[in-house]
Amino acid sequence: MISQKEPVHTEETCKASIAAVRDTLYVLNGKWKLPIIIALSAGPKRFKELHRSLHEITPKILSKELKELELNDFVTRTVYATSPVTVEYALTKYSQSLNNIIDEMREWGIQHRKRIMRKK
Amino acid sequence: MISQKEPVHTEETCKASIAAVRDTLYVLNGKWKLPIIIALSAGPKRFKELHRSLHEITPKILSKELKELELNDFVTRTVYATSPVTVEYALTKYSQSLNNIIDEMREWGIQHRKRIMRKK
Repeated sequence: MISQKEPVHTEETCKASIAAVRDTLYVLNGKWKLPIIIALSAGPKRFKELHRSLHEITPKILSKELKELELNDFVTRTVYATSPVTVEYALTKYSQSLNNIIDEMREWGIQHRKRIMRKK
Repeated sequence: MISQKEPVHTEETCKASIAAVRDTLYVLNGKWKLPIIIALSAGPKRFKELHRSLHEITPKILSKELKELELNDFVTRTVYATSPVTVEYALTKYSQSLNNIIDEMREWGIQHRKRIMRKK
């Protein structure tokens, strides 16, 4: 993925950027998709393990978010014929395309928290 | 800003990443903050101009989002004593700290759209 470090400036490039960023925000909508993907980056997890990693999320929302992540090809859901059945969630290769966004958001979150602490 | 290109892997680094990314998502919540910032990256704008750049947003939401962006030190609001008064919104220096996130989201949105078009 090519990262352009120059800020966008003209009205035309602004329009194109707004459209592309809105596409991304549309796919990553809400506050849970990226945290779920990060939680799965340490390896596949069952529903309950995932729920524990994210604690504040409700099971209903987690279930809904996982379905959307599956639809967008970020997560696979595998059912193992154990007794009782085991359902495991894992990241797809395509989910790695989000790594740069996640890295930048992590760095930004860290510096923002430091900045706020300095201001207090 | 340092960008780590390696994906996160251990449970410990996952936890820290989730916390930092959630901080970022908390500040950038909703679907309009980044588009507003991009719209202002071509230069300061009055409310109506900004509204025109983003067309789908309602004036009420735009006003709310601008207040939140001001509170988080991304945007300044300047009132000029013209008749009638002119109110202008502009980006702060701190808003530039979001450039990498915006760049990565733009690139991702572009490749995602291409990917979907190929699948159709």
